[in-house]
Order: sequence, then C-alpha cells, then structure tokens
Amino acid sequence: MSIFTARESEIRGYCRVYPVVFDTASNAIQVDDQGKEYIDFFAGAGVLNFGHNNERMKRAVINYIESDGVTHSLDMHSTAKQKFMERFTSTILEPRSMPHKMQFMGPTGTNAVEAALKIARRATGRTQIVAFTHGFHGMTLGALACTANQAFRAASGVPLEHVSHFPFDCTEANAIPGGGADVIEQMRWLYTEGSSGMTPPAAFLVETIQAEGGVNVASKEWLQSLAALAKELGSLLIIDDIQMGCGRTGSYFSFDEMDIDPDIICLAKGIGGWGTPMAMNLIKPEVDKHWNPGEHTGTFRGQGLSFIAGAEALGYFETPDLMDEVKVKGKAMYDAVAPLEEKYESVHIRGRGMVYGVDVGDGATAKAIISACFDDGLLVSACGSGGRVIKLIPPLTIPQDQMETGLATLLKHAEKVLGGGA
Amino acid sequence: MSIFTARESEIRGYCRVYPVVFDTASNAIQVDDQGKEYIDFFAGAGVLNFGHNNERMKRAVINYIESDGVTHSLDMHSTAKQKFMERFTSTILEPRSMPHKMQFMGPTGTNAVEAALKIARRATGRTQIVAFTHGFHGMTLGALACTANQAFRAASGVPLEHVSHFPFDCTEANAIPGGGADVIEQMRWLYTEGSSGMTPPAAFLVETIQAEGGVNVASKEWLQSLAALAKELGSLLIIDDIQMGCGRTGSYFSFDEMDIDPDIICLAKGIGGWGTPMAMNLIKPEVDKHWNPGEHTGTFRGQGLSFIAGAEALGYFETPDLMDEVKVKGKAMYDAVAPLEEKYESVHIRGRGMVYGVDVGDGATAKAIISACFDDGLLVSACGSGGRVIKLIPPLTIPQDQMETGLATLLKHAEKVLGGGA
Amino acid sequence: MSIFTARESEIRGYCRVYPVVFDTASNAIQVDDQGKEYIDFFAGAGVLNFGHNNERMKRAVINYIESDGVTHSLDMHSTAKQKFMERFTSTILEPRSMPHKMQFMGPTGTNAVEAALKIARRATGRTQIVAFTHGFHGMTLGALACTANQAFRAASGVPLEHVSHFPFDCTEANAIPGGGADVIEQMRWLYTEGSSGMTPPAAFLVETIQAEGGVNVASKEWLQSLAALAKELGSLLIIDDIQMGCGRTGSYFSFDEMDIDPDIICLAKGIGGWGTPMAMNLIKPEVDKHWNPGEHTGTFRGQGLSFIAGAEALGYFETPDLMDEVKVKGKAMYDAVAPLEEKYESVHIRGRGMVYGVDVGDGATAKAIISACFDDGLLVSACGSGGRVIKLIPPLTIPQDQMETGLATLLKHAEKVLGGGA
Amino acid sequence: MSIFTARESEIRGYCRVYPVVFDTASNAIQVDDQGKEYIDFFAGAGVLNFGHNNERMKRAVINYIESDGVTHSLDMHSTAKQKFMERFTSTILEPRSMPHKMQFMGPTGTNAVEAALKIARRATGRTQIVAFTHGFHGMTLGALACTANQAFRAASGVPLEHVSHFPFDCTEANAIPGGGADVIEQMRWLYTEGSSGMTPPAAFLVETIQAEGGVNVASKEWLQSLAALAKELGSLLIIDDIQMGCGRTGSYFSFDEMDIDPDIICLAKGIGGWGTPMAMNLIKPEVDKHWNPGEHTGTFRGQGLSFIAGAEALGYFETPDLMDEVKVKGKAMYDAVAPLEEKYESVHIRGRGMVYGVDVGDGATAKAIISACFDDGLLVSACGSGGRVIKLIPPLTIPQDQMETGLATLLKHAEKVLGGGA
Repeated sequence: MSIFTARESEIRGYCRVYPVVFDTASNAIQVDDQGKEYIDFFAGAGVLNFGHNNERMKRAVINYIESDGVTHSLDMHSTAKQKFMERFTSTILEPRSMPHKMQFMGPTGTNAVEAALKIARRATGRTQIVAFTHGFHGMTLGALACTANQAFRAASGVPLEHVSHFPFDCTEANAIPGGGADVIEQMRWLYTEGSSGMTPPAAFLVETIQAEGGVNVASKEWLQSLAALAKELGSLLIIDDIQMGCGRTGSYFSFDEMDIDPDIICLAKGIGGWGTPMAMNLIKPEVDKHWNPGEHTGTFRGQGLSFIAGAEALGYFETPDLMDEVKVKGKAMYDAVAPLEEKYESVHIRGRGMVYGVDVGDGATAKAIISACFDDGLLVSACGSGGRVIKLIPPLTIPQDQMETGLATLLKHAEKVLGGGA
Repeated sequence: MSIFTARESEIRGYCRVYPVVFDTASNAIQVDDQGKEYIDFFAGAGVLNFGHNNERMKRAVINYIESDGVTHSLDMHSTAKQKFMERFTSTILEPRSMPHKMQFMGPTGTNAVEAALKIARRATGRTQIVAFTHGFHGMTLGALACTANQAFRAASGVPLEHVSHFPFDCTEANAIPGGGADVIEQMRWLYTEGSSGMTPPAAFLVETIQAEGGVNVASKEWLQSLAALAKELGSLLIIDDIQMGCGRTGSYFSFDEMDIDPDIICLAKGIGGWGTPMAMNLIKPEVDKHWNPGEHTGTFRGQGLSFIAGAEALGYFETPDLMDEVKVKGKAMYDAVAPLEEKYESVHIRGRGMVYGVDVGDGATAKAIISACFDDGLLVSACGSGGRVIKLIPPLTIPQDQMETGLATLLKHAEKVLGGGA
Repeated sequence: MSIFTARESEIRGYCRVYPVVFDTASNAIQVDDQGKEYIDFFAGAGVLNFGHNNERMKRAVINYIESDGVTHSLDMHSTAKQKFMERFTSTILEPRSMPHKMQFMGPTGTNAVEAALKIARRATGRTQIVAFTHGFHGMTLGALACTANQAFRAASGVPLEHVSHFPFDCTEANAIPGGGADVIEQMRWLYTEGSSGMTPPAAFLVETIQAEGGVNVASKEWLQSLAALAKELGSLLIIDDIQMGCGRTGSYFSFDEMDIDPDIICLAKGIGGWGTPMAMNLIKPEVDKHWNPGEHTGTFRGQGLSFIAGAEALGYFETPDLMDEVKVKGKAMYDAVAPLEEKYESVHIRGRGMVYGVDVGDGATAKAIISACFDDGLLVSACGSGGRVIKLIPPLTIPQDQMETGLATLLKHAEKVLGGGA
Repeated sequence: MSIFTARESEIRGYCRVYPVVFDTASNAIQVDDQGKEYIDFFAGAGVLNFGHNNERMKRAVINYIESDGVTHSLDMHSTAKQKFMERFTSTILEPRSMPHKMQFMGPTGTNAVEAALKIARRATGRTQIVAFTHGFHGMTLGALACTANQAFRAASGVPLEHVSHFPFDCTEANAIPGGGADVIEQMRWLYTEGSSGMTPPAAFLVETIQAEGGVNVASKEWLQSLAALAKELGSLLIIDDIQMGCGRTGSYFSFDEMDIDPDIICLAKGIGGWGTPMAMNLIKPEVDKHWNPGEHTGTFRGQGLSFIAGAEALGYFETPDLMDEVKVKGKAMYDAVAPLEEKYESVHIRGRGMVYGVDVGDGATAKAIISACFDDGLLVSACGSGGRVIKLIPPLTIPQDQMETGLATLLKHAEKVLGGGA
C-alpha cells in the first residue's frame, strides 16, 4: 500500500484521475517516477502560464536563495516586494492609467476573494454580494458562499449566506427566458424597487470567463451592462481574474478589451507564475482607504520567491512577443477542436485566448476522453456542471509541436469516445 | 514617495512597526537595505522555527529546483510529497501511535482551520463550534468566526455565526467567577440540559497556548477536562497547533505531554519551516472518511519546495538535539524576563518552551518598548488584547549569544519604559 | 394633549391617516365620537368581510357569553371549536374533496405563516423558502423574511435569511425581460442546475392577489405553472389566503377556480369574520404528520368567540346568495373605477371579486385622494410600493346604496386630484 | 372518530392531557360536555387571572357589543382604546412614575417580544440579544431564538441566530461553578473584553420568574446586578412579564419590589384578562422614539373587547383588595405543598405570589400526578425541562374552598405517586 493510500486524506482528488507519481517537470512536460512523459494541457490549474520550472524564473529564484534573500516577510517591506511592486506598476498599471492599490493578503485565491468581499462590504456599508451561476471563487466560507457548485457548497456544513446568485451570461442560461442578458434588466428592477425583498448589493463578483464553471464566456456587452448597473446602484464591481488573468486570454487582464473599470480585481495563480503561491488584490484608492491597518492578516503575505518569480513573469508583458504568440496558438487550438462541434450535436466549444472548453454534454463522456488522453500522455481535466467540459489550458509558452501533438491526442480520443457523430 | 506609500494598500501593518526595507536574512539575523542587522525574536510569526534560509533546507531546495523537481502539483502525487509524507509518518505519527490521515488543503493556516471545521460539521452532523476567548484561528470567514479579537471580527462585514465563545483557561478569565476551569462544568451543564438554548457542538477548537491572544497558556488539567467533555458530548476536539506546533514548545506537538488525543490537528507555519507556505491537517480516519474526493480544493495544495524543506525540518525531530536545546534556551528566556514580573506589578510573564509573552499591562507601553528595541536592533512584536503583550519567539536555532544579546536589549528598554518599578 | 399623543407609541399609523376616535360601527358604517359617519371601504384590512357587528354573529356571540361558554381554551377541545371544525369540514373541505387537517396556532396571520414555514421545512428537510416581490406575509421574524417591502424589513435589525425572492406575476414585473411568466422557467433552470448556487426550496409561498403589495393579480396560468414547478422540485405550495380568502374574490378560497392543489393554506382575518382574532392553517395530512404534539404553541389558540362568529360566517357559504352578490357588486366596483384608467395614463385598475386597486402612479397622489375621501366620509387606504395604490375592500355585505355613494365619493376626489386627465 | 381526530392537526397538545370537550366555564370551574366539573389551577396559562367569564368583564363586554362598539380597529383610535389607555396610565404608570409609552402590536405575547427585539436593536444599533437558559418567549422566529427549550427550537427548521444564552439565576444553574449569580461577572468580563469574540448586546431579555421554564425564581439581587450590567454596557433591559405580570405575584408587575427600571416591558395574557387576546409593550420614550410610524404592523392590534375587559381588569388594581388576597392565598398554596419538599428528597417547591411549581424530579412522575388529578377533577399542567414541574396558577379570584379542594386533590395524588417518601 502506498503512503498515499495509507496516510493521505480521502479528499485527495486529481491523483485519482492521474494515478501516477510525478517527479520532474519542464515547461509543458511533466515526467512521472517511471520516466513517462506527459504533455501538460492543465498548467497547474492556471498557475503555470509560463511553464514548469520556467528558466528565467528558475535562475532568478536560485540566485535569490543563494544570496540569502528574504523568503518570508509577512507584510514587512522587502527589496523583493519592492521590485515586484515597481515593475507591476510600470508594466501593468501605469500603461492602463489604473490608480489601484495593491494588497497582498495571503497567497491563495480564496484569500483574495475573502479580502475583496470584506472591503466591499466595509466601503459600501452593505452586506449582500451578487455572484453568478457556475461561478467559482474559492473554498473558505466567505468565498464559498459565492461559489455556485453545489458539491462544494454542500461541504460547508452551515448555511451560506449574504450572497445572491443570478444567471451568468452563458449559453445555457441564455436559452431560458429571463436568463443571460435579460438578467441585467431583472436585477435593475429588483434592486431599485422598494418592495422586491432585496436591497442593492455591496458588490457584483464576476469572472469574465468562468473557468471551473465550464469555460463560460461573458460577452463584452453583458459585462458593460453589468458594470453600468453596479455604478447605478452604488455597488462595487469585483472581477475575479484569478484563473483568467495574467495573460491567459492574450492580454494581461482578461477584461482588457471590455471597456470596463473594475473597483477591485482579484489575482492569484499566474501572478507568481512559477508555482509558489501568491495572490494580490488591486483596489481603487477610494475603496482601499476604508481598510484599517492590519485588520485582514495572514502569515504568508510576503512570499519572497513568488515576488522574484512574479517580477520575471512581468517581463513577458514588457514586449508584445508572448501575447502575440497566445493569439496565434489560441487560434490553432480553436481550429483544432472546432470540427468536433460541427460533427457532434452534443459538443460545444467555448473559449478565448489560450483557454478552451470542449463541452461534451455529460461528465461520463468527458471522463472517458480524459482518461484515454492520460494513458496516451496528455494531461487535461474536467470542469463545468457534472464535469462535462474538457478544459484546455496549456502553458502559454508551450512549444508549437507539443501543442499540436496534444491537440491531436485529444481529437483522436474524443472521436473514439464520441463515436460516429451526428 | 516610496512604492509602498504610493501603491500598497492601507491595510499594511508590520511595515509600519518596522519602517525599513529588509533585504537578506540568515538564521536569527535580518538585514535591511541599509545594511543594518536585526536580531529576530519574531521568526516570521512562528514560520521560521529553524531560522531564515536554514542551510539544510536551502541546499535541499536549490538541488530540487536545479533538478526540475515539480514545484506545483495541486493534489496530484509527487515524489516530493511522497517523501515528506513517509518521513512525517515515521518521525512523528508512528512513534506516537497516531493513526491520523494527512490532508493538504491549501497552504495557509486559515485554510487548515476552514477544512477542519467542514469535516467536523460533516462528521457530526452538527453546525455549532465552540471556540475560546482570545483565540486566533484565521481571517477567512469560517475561521474568523472562531477568532475572538473584535478588531479582526469587525472587518467581516457580516454576522459571524455558528460559533460560541467561552472563557479560555487563562489568568484573566480565571480571575472572574465562572471563568477558567469552571467553564468546563458550565459547558457540561449547558450542553446536556435540554432547555439551555444550546445543543452540543460539532467540535471544540482550541490552542494549547494562545499565541496571538497574548501567550495564554492552558493547563494540562484544563485541556484534559475539555477533551473529556468533548468525548462525552460526541464533539470533536480540534487542536489548532499552527503557531505552537513543530517544536516551539520543546516537543513536536504542543500537546505532547498533555495526555489528550485530538481528533483533528491543524498545522501550518513551521511545518514547511522555510518560509514557503504549507499547511496540513491530521485527521483521525473515522472522521476523515466522511470527506468526498475533491470537495475542499485549493490551487496551492502541492507545494514542492515546502515538501522538500519540510522533510528537512523533520530531521530536527529524529534526534533529541534541537528539542533539548529548546528546553535550555527556553529556561534562559524565562530567567531573563522573570525579574520584570517581580519588579513591576503590571508585568506578567507567561509561556513555555521557546515562546514567552511579557504582558506589560497596556498596548501603549508595549508599543514603546517594541519601538525602542527595533531602533536598537531587535525585532519583537505585540500580541494580546490591545497589543499589551510582547511576544518572544526567536528561531529555535538561534545562536546562544544572539539570544542573550536580544534578551538584554529587551530588558534594557523594558526597564527604561516601565521606569522605577513597583 | 390626547392620551394617544401622550402615551401611545410613535409607531401608531392608521390613526394618523384617520385622525378621529371611532366609537361605534355597524356593517359598512363607522361612527366617530363626534357622531360623524364614514362608509367603510377598508373592512378592518379584510377582517370584516361580513361587516362590523354583523347581526348574526353578534347574537351568537352574546348568547355564547351569556351561557358562560369557554372564551379561552388554548388547544384543548371545546364545544365551540368542535362546531366550527365540523361546519368548516362540511361546508368548505368536503365539497372540494380537500383532505387537509386544520391547525390553530395562535390567532394572527403572521403566526399562521410562521407555522406553515416550520412544517414545510420539517416535511421537506430543506431550509430555503421562495417568496415573491411585493408579497406581504407578516411582521414576526420568520414571516417578515418572506415579506418584500423594505420599510418593514429594515425594522428587523437582523439579516432576514433563508428566503429567496423572485418577481411575482404582475404588471410591473411583466414589463421587464425575465420577469412575470418567464420567472417560472428561470426558477426551473436555477433549481435543477447543480451549479446555480441554489438548491430547491422547502416551499413556494405565494398570494393569488397581493393585497398589501398593491392588488397585484396572478394569472391562473402563472399559478398553475408555479404549482407544477413546486411538484417537480418536491417543494410545497403554500397559498397565503389571509387577506384574499373567505369570500373576498367571490368564492371561499381565492384560488377556487385555479385548478391548483396547495399543500398548505394560511387563513386568518376573515375566518372569524367578526373582529376577534383567529387564524388557521389547512395542511395536507402527509405534511401535517411531521408535527410533534405541542411543538408550535401559543396562548391564544382557542378563541371561543372567534369560533362562534366563524361558524356563523360559514353560513354565508352554505347558500350561493352572498357569493352571487359579490360577483354583482364586484362588477359594479370595476365599472365605477375603470373609466379612471381610460382617462388617466398614470392610473391602472387591478382586482377581482370585491377587491380592487386603483394604482394612481405615486404615493403622494394616492394620499391626497385618500385624505379628501376621509374628509368626505369614506374610508379607503393605500397599498403597494410607496403607497401608490388605493385599495377598495368594502365588507361583502355592504348595502348597494352605500357602495354606490362610496364609489362616487372616490371618483369625485380622484378626478379632483388627478386633474384634467390625459 | 371525533372531528378532532379526523381533522385537527397532529400538533394538538393540551387536549391529549385533558381528553374531554370543555363546554362552559365560570371563575375557577370548567365544565365538560358531560357535565363534569374541574377546578382550574391552570387559568388559561395565565390569561385568566380574574377567572373564566369574570362577571364584571362579561357585563362590560356584552354591553359594549350590544351598543355596536368597535370590535376591531387596527391601530386607529377608538373610544375603547382611549379608556383603556387612560385607566392604565392612571392606575399603573403614574403611581410608579413610569414614563413608558404603550405599543399595541398584535394581540399575542410572541408578537410583543418580536416588537421589543426590533426596537431594542434599532435603538442600540446592535444585533445580539442575551436571553437565559429555560427562558420562554414565544414561537415565532425572532422570539423562538430567545426561547431556550430545544423541543421548540428544533421545530424552527433554520438556525436560530443573533441570540446568546447564559445560565439563569436558578437552583440548578447555581449548583454548577460559574452558573447562577457568577454569570453576571462572567458576562461583564466577556462583554467588556475586546478579545472575547463577543460584543455587547442590544438587550437582555429576562423573566423574573420563568413560568414555562419550571417556575424558576430570580432573586432581587441577581435582577439588580443584571440591570446594572445592562446599564453599564448600554444595553436595554427587557422584562418579559407576559405570564408573571398583571397581578400574579401579588403586585401588578412581577418586578415591582425589585428596584429595577426596565426599558421595555412585554405584557400579554392577563392584560385583557378575559380570554380574548391582547398584548402591549411598555417602552421608555427615549427608546420608543426610534420607531417609524407603521413599521411593525398587525391586523389585530385594536381588539375592542380586550380593551373593554382589560379596563375592567385594571379595577382590581385600584383598591388593595385582590392583591391582599393574593398574598394570603399564595401563602396557603405554599403551606399546602411545602411538606412535599420535606417529605421527598426529589421534590422542590419554587414560587411567589400565586404561582408555585412542584418540581418532582422527572417528567414521568409529574405526568402521572397530573393525570390522576385530572381524573379527580383538578386541572394542573407541566412545565420545566422534560415536564418535571407541576405548575399551579389558579385564577387570583378562586374561592377559598375551591383552592383548598384543589390543593388537597394535588397532595393526595402527589403522595400516591411519589410513594412512601424519603
């Protein structure tokens, strides 16, 4: 019996889908302890946008450690943090004229969401949050109340309150009367009518593309309507860009071309970009000023290695090269999987930049395809209701040939499992 | 204007107490960007039990990175995790005949507490948790409901529910009728009487020594009574050993000599021991079996560097050397500060192992001493109500001479601020 | 200074609209202490369907008191209760083949709603209730969470939870995309999709006509769709017929012609019909069996006088006379006020049976009309958002000439206030 | 099968203890439909302090009905209400120099408590309420959260929140360390310590004698300490005098000799005194002014018959006769049952005025005694945890001989059931 079977909690999940022991990894390749190689279309759930053991980051991190750089600093000042903040300001914020402050609140995405909810409630004096169907925002109690998936919610053991859910702008919801775009009008009516039983929320918390929720893509129009509604109601707009930010969609923020102006942006995963954790909220100064020093703490707020790696990651946004590549590779991804949609009625393709979801209609089918891919050396994972969507998020830096091989592997097994077609 | 002033959130805290920029660090010494050295009696709030850039860990981590070891694996199997788990089992669990399973649920302490609450509620089918006055358990909504400090609670913006607070076994509470030890009897009566308005809790969540709460030390008798009550009521006993575990008290667990048998133990901070985050819950198999795979997730559950460093940290528990040292150094710490208690009526010393609190009666006095120490090259921090307790938690590996220098610095400034004495 | 000004709570309300002291009352006439007579189009907010001091009831009540009948019996058996229950069974339940049990739970409507929520939650093992915009269900905390009006909700001082509000099938909501009829489809999708953030409710709580909410009339089709959805989801259908039941709409239940089969029906107000309080829930046996004896109590469950008066009230449903009259008078009411709708763009008429709402578009206009009517000897009151709807609910037994006089008074002042017209 | 078995809800309770059909009643005698007479030591759970069909009230009520007096007026002014308020002011408030305002908020006790909680939360801007073990305050959700009995609480189907329970000053609680009197000190410490996890409550809600809770009698000292603590904390003191007020203890208010000055007093039951419902809160003007007109409503706020009967009831407090009688009869009650306490170790007698509880140690014993008494023509009922206390609350107006007969019946059966004695 392996140590995992003997001693690891029953809650372990991914290791049941990929029942091997991984040993080393480099860019888009993971190698198990038997030496078998896998092409990685999963990228640490969006953390490893720049590949496993990215060379630039690796060197920077080793140098930092060798020089006895501070690895852990809570929210004290450190030179590593200073450099990260300066580079983030000049590379990301200033070119967009964004006045936002940076908050480091603990290195996980769920912590970023919890802190965003706190300051939104404080700044508005309201308690209710609006989140959306299929949204995923984390596992701690405050964030979990915003997460839509019932399997996660049911584990809380207590009522999840102070959050209202409305239909997200996605295919499925659009198919129902009153779903999709109409929901903005419905919310406007509900939140301005004094006898609706509801009062305007502290904030709307939304992803531009719901990654865990099934790669559901919100339209620019819908996001703009939502932003306008938030403004009207005196509610904050919080974009959870944890999985979709940091270059995944072909630009630093997933909403860069949306002409919206979020009050708070939650970042994590790709921001450090190298696998050590990091999270950061960007908060407009007029919202941020409501914080009192130290009232949301966390031991691991000052992650030296993540600052160092994250500063390197910012280098990818100082020249257009990688983002241009993302557009080209993203198109290749779409071109590769789009025929499945034409061939199979049950298949729907959704995505943008270098994230695509292949919705095969049910979880069992997706599982069969994922399992066959795994055996054949490709790591992909499931998302969406019942796990019916195969999510493709390779490192942005994946070499062209590995991407093609991976896509071919996926196509082969998808067609094998889906059968003769419509 | 520094980048911090310009762009960091108003919430920043420690950097206001230590207004310099730290650059490098080694064992118990931190160096700022002007080259000034500080003796560190803070140890990353308990993370750096084995010192900054601990040489053993540093070498192991660099080797791991150089070999392209997996840095980030969610809850997939990895060789780094395998080695950590094997070594934890043989070094810590088996010698104590502990059957507990290990859960990695996200690398922060608050996440460990959130997961512990979930499984306790699931396993018992109850919702209420009992936590204690002055307890500190984290900042995310579920953990925050257990945290006692009103300054933290007030930031939540929503009611904090499903948790009842009772007086902890500490000096202050003991001074009131019905506080301290008596509270066990009170809880027994309340939780077995059908007309008390209360039903038995899912779990009692308790620290053996409340670090953030002011270095309040629970007696063995009290902890045993609490454990017995939990058993009687069918409630779980959860020990939050996040700050006090991993050797701080002179043994791996802070409750090692207490003859209690917790159902769940929350570990974080010192478990990785090197500054990269890691958290782990130990859960009895009969409790753990209530988890469904994947229902509490988190991106950063598989921290390769922390597994590697953490495995090195376990080395310190394979021979008695360091724990013996802790006993000796701890005694020296106590001997150094004990005279303050005799000299000043307002001063109280509390602690065990290598954690001591110097309660100077009010926050302003503590702040003045901490500030003078900082100027004089010693890092100490405040805890307890209103910040009136100076907490001393140097790395366990601090060299003898640095500890003596640090203690002397503290004494000097404490006496200067406290004045002529009683 | 009157005793009212000196000693009555600031919360007093109707007495500010009608600033006189009423002394006597008979059928549809109220007389103040100066001898001035008023035609009553308010009927005790729906309690006095059979008129003030209804002669039949008055005689029966006096005889009962003279004979030392039991006035107060909690939930003991009494002959008065026995007769009421027998007559209710034979007159109302048996002709409709309704198997429902009767629960007397305290004499107020809000208590009926509270008890209905409890048993619905118990029977389904679910917590959430769906209520609707503009719904009114009472003032105690459980019922208040279902009431939609923000002015009432804001007085609670605590979050109102475990209830979700959706748009009711009314004019206003129909005008928004996704409102009105579409909301049934939206709820179906939300409550069957595992990633909506919502789980199916214990019950849908709905009025067929929202009286306090502004005389909003649900269509038969909408109610049937709602009933079908409830059945699909395993949720109970609770009809709050407190203000609209007991003959107001031309039949005993307001849903008699709707072909729906509610699991629970809440009755109060008109059920006693004479002004002493009474409330009763009708509960299907398969739901009712989940009650344990005595777990929802109340001192005033056994109101002897209300049983006696209520039994007399049932006499009005043993022959078709009164209900036939209601149809005729109701048509006359509509014919009288309908021209206002044609003449004024801002005016909308809604209603059925002998309840009509004249929506004049804003609260100030309604207030001016109501005040002028009062001065001119007609009692009408405001309902709906901001009080913009004038509600007409005369006793069902109002003499033809008084009704005509009252309607003429209303028309006169409405036109005076509304002015020249469209 | 009787109509009750066939059609009354399973929740029916008292009728299972007294399985007959009551027909008439006069002062302290109830007569069933077979003509059997019962001496009533239950008095409608405290409603009928002045006896069934009290002659004075009966005449006043019949005259009022005959004259077409207003029976139902919501919160409009009526001459009946005017007279009641004037008489209450001159008889009760002015002699005590009480500045309180009167609020009529719906005729049931639970409604009074709900309204008291609302205004206490509004006036203080706080949400939490402190209630006590064994307290009983009603069945609607807000009041139920304050009620301690788990059998009632469990029926709510949702978490009962925003209320903390502490041990009441009673025998049982006094026996545990930290219970009884000490709890005041414990609360003082908890509510003034910033790291207790608790913030000061909006109000303390307390009965002076817990009737339903088992006739637990708070001492004057404890109530004074509680009142002082409330003042210190800026919390309101709410006395729930619903069952113990209106003369039951030998004075109008049960706290008349306690030298405390409650901010809010909840009255119901005995205030109308004749069996038709009525409830009233007395609120200090500085608290009451926080109400907005109409924000806590209720259909049955203006109960004409109850005002008329209640005004008659006040006559009993204009001369010392009845209260003097209560003292004499109360002593006789105590003298009659006290020997049981001496004779049986398991028996404890508690009470004051004309309310006594005979605690026989367990519910089965109490049930056996109650059942034997019923068969022998005496109505008594159970209260306290598990129903182990026999509660004696005859009408204050019970004739001497009937009281003696009743007490003798009780003694006889108590001894029969309890057996040979200690």
